[in-house]
Amino acid sequence: MSLYAAPVARLIEEFEKLPGIGRKTAQRLAFHVMNMPVEKVEGLANAIREARTRIKYCSVCSNLTDVDPCSICSNPSRDSSVICVVEDPRDVAAMERTREFKGLYHVLHGAISPMEGIGPEDIKIKELLERVRKNNIAEIILATNPNIEGEATAMYIAKLLKPLGIKTTRLAHGIPVGGDLEYADEVTLAKALEGRREI
Amino acid sequence: MSLYAAPVARLIEEFEKLPGIGRKTAQRLAFHVMNMPVEKVEGLANAIREARTRIKYCSVCSNLTDVDPCSICSNPSRDSSVICVVEDPRDVAAMERTREFKGLYHVLHGAISPMEGIGPEDIKIKELLERVRKNNIAEIILATNPNIEGEATAMYIAKLLKPLGIKTTRLAHGIPVGGDLEYADEVTLAKALEGRREI
Repeated sequence: MSLYAAPVARLIEEFEKLPGIGRKTAQRLAFHVMNMPVEKVEGLANAIREARTRIKYCSVCSNLTDVDPCSICSNPSRDSSVICVVEDPRDVAAMERTREFKGLYHVLHGAISPMEGIGPEDIKIKELLERVRKNNIAEIILATNPNIEGEATAMYIAKLLKPLGIKTTRLAHGIPVGGDLEYADEVTLAKALEGRREI
Repeated sequence: MSLYAAPVARLIEEFEKLPGIGRKTAQRLAFHVMNMPVEKVEGLANAIREARTRIKYCSVCSNLTDVDPCSICSNPSRDSSVICVVEDPRDVAAMERTREFKGLYHVLHGAISPMEGIGPEDIKIKELLERVRKNNIAEIILATNPNIEGEATAMYIAKLLKPLGIKTTRLAHGIPVGGDLEYADEVTLAKALEGRREI
């Protein structure tokens, strides 16, 4: 028997299924919901439902979108000859925040990870190659994460792109701007040193 | 302009409004929702809506319930002569977890807190007094939290009950002072119940 009325117990359970939400947080959220005005609760429930049902993958870049092609792929002022390859839609948002990149994206939806059983065919590499073959691409920026899986994925894609003779680049490693040299890890610092530039 | 498609941005915003959910967690939850099967998303949205619409205060004890009176108040095997007064429905769940208490509850929905502008009339003290006058009550256990607000609330209620000549007790210290009833483990809470004293 649950210690809470059925609808409360069910909501706590539902919240607990979400990533990073434990029992206590789930309870706190459930009780918060029960104290919210009804229209706010409707707003939350609808936002959840609509995000899931109205959002699709862009047929060009695989980013999440509610219009197809997405607003970036269909923007004529962007440079369609440069594609930035990222693992995740959140990485697109991170790149956009720089306001420096004017090309298009390609979202892989993951990285190659033999440990997790994710092979090249499980992420959107095939779609990238098709896109490269069909369009006039000058450069592919491989902006996968700077960890083992991301590096392996970048190397794998670079190998596939080699025969096509397209310029393939990787984001530079270095010390974060505004960071402190003292707190940079050795590997990052070594990479920053290696990639030093004349001023 | 948002960096995400409108329904995604809206969901992130909705999650961010929840207590203890920051920008990053809200994004993580939103992306999780978009990767969930549609029927699971419907389940979550419905659980949220139903918890809010189907849950009411019990007309007797003010605990949250989907039936009125609640399952505890309407349980004939419970001792209706003992009322345990708590601040919050979560505290009812905490007490029930001890399996030691066989009486009924009264949920105040808060504690007196001049700092937060919560006076005696803002919590369900009037309802408690009415209940005590109308029924044959042998004992009132004041199980408000062992912090300043909870102690003040207990003292205030004890004073009001004094003229009625009803035995009034407080949970024994065994509960860490300054702590929250909700986070106490079952054994400590059971000990506290067992060692309750008249005030």
